[in-house]
Amino acid sequence: MSGILTIAGLGPGDQALVTPEVSAALAAATDVVGYAPYVGRVQPREGLTLHPSDNRMELQRAGDALQLASEGRRVVMVSSGDPGVFAMAAAVFEALEVSPQWQGLAIRVMPGVTAMLAAAARAGAPLGHDFCAINLSDNLKPWPMIEKRLRLASEADFAIAMYNPRSVSRPEGFGRALSVLKEAGCGERLVIFAHAVSTPAERIETVLLREARPEMADMRTLVIVGNSATRRVGRWVYAPRHAR
Amino acid sequence: MSGILTIAGLGPGDQALVTPEVSAALAAATDVVGYAPYVGRVQPREGLTLHPSDNRMELQRAGDALQLASEGRRVVMVSSGDPGVFAMAAAVFEALEVSPQWQGLAIRVMPGVTAMLAAAARAGAPLGHDFCAINLSDNLKPWPMIEKRLRLASEADFAIAMYNPRSVSRPEGFGRALSVLKEAGCGERLVIFAHAVSTPAERIETVLLREARPEMADMRTLVIVGNSATRRVGRWVYAPRHAR
Repeated sequence: MSGILTIAGLGPGDQALVTPEVSAALAAATDVVGYAPYVGRVQPREGLTLHPSDNRMELQRAGDALQLASEGRRVVMVSSGDPGVFAMAAAVFEALEVSPQWQGLAIRVMPGVTAMLAAAARAGAPLGHDFCAINLSDNLKPWPMIEKRLRLASEADFAIAMYNPRSVSRPEGFGRALSVLKEAGCGERLVIFAHAVSTPAERIETVLLREARPEMADMRTLVIVGNSATRRVGRWVYAPRHAR
Repeated sequence: MSGILTIAGLGPGDQALVTPEVSAALAAATDVVGYAPYVGRVQPREGLTLHPSDNRMELQRAGDALQLASEGRRVVMVSSGDPGVFAMAAAVFEALEVSPQWQGLAIRVMPGVTAMLAAAARAGAPLGHDFCAINLSDNLKPWPMIEKRLRLASEADFAIAMYNPRSVSRPEGFGRALSVLKEAGCGERLVIFAHAVSTPAERIETVLLREARPEMADMRTLVIVGNSATRRVGRWVYAPRHAR
């Protein structure tokens, strides 16, 4: 048997948002590797070994998954959302660069519904015009780079999807991000706080940016800042397709 | 029976990338509305009326769908990819703004795997770091706005996903976009041309931006310009998670 590593996205939480492609890969897997809460979303069964690991163990986890595949196992590495958006796919390719002996292994990446798409769908269509996605965690990049990107994104009039806005270990950044955008003249823009989308804890809240408070976000929140034309219609929020 | 309009994303083409949520909505539908090639992806069955329409008929199509739902039909409006990304969801909310009598209708939006996620998965992980998505069509916005966004995206060092890069009626824009990025110093960046991802016609090609030619793209191509750190490992292309 020749091994394979499948890097798969489980979507935002609801089983009805897992693609059939990913479900089939899980059904054929011998091993599932990933951050514990995501591995916890996979149904245990005989013949399947689950390998949950801690947060911030990405490179170690990627190496473990490649090692298992090299031993002939059918390994699925699970991420929430899409594995290519601020998730495990990049970490696997980093590990592959460090350990070229694994570059001949069979690897495939299976896309998923990333958080900003699920959040946008619940709110309406705030990503219907040009937009950007910024990871607000400064674990892997300097904070001034994040501020610079927020300023340029505002100048470009992109809608801005913010991933990982706030955590216990990074309580300050999101408030600073809001301040940067306020200074950039975005105070009257609509901001959507989408918490735990597609799970029982889902909560969607839309406010003006000048009214937004840092405590409105946590690690399970995806934040979308509208562009300058983003507006409400009834209970919905959307970005018009036209721009002048 | 009370009507409902479901705005659903069919993913990039492969049936294995259609979410179970969308499949269930199609199975329960009385009417499917959309651009003809997308309606053509829905299996006909008794009790289901298909309403294919031409391109550029978005507002008319949205109005028709709302009208059907107001008559008590279970209508699914289909888009390729995700309905909220340069697709029909925004057009429906525009129609809703013009015709407030429909604002009480039941509407839901179902996300899908948008083209850039499917393209990224095939190539590796080029969206593993901050990125933006720009619709290169100037049907609904002035071309100088597109050029400005490309310059700012380059300055922000975003990876750039370009939707609708080139069509028969817009043969010039994509070449100009490449020139703008070359002038902005992106000549050595990797560019991924992902054609008809997840269909039998799929073709993925990666070149340096200075070697890219406009003819490499058509309307079925999703183009991803890497950021300044995007690199190859084996047959893969990825954006490192770290940045300095």
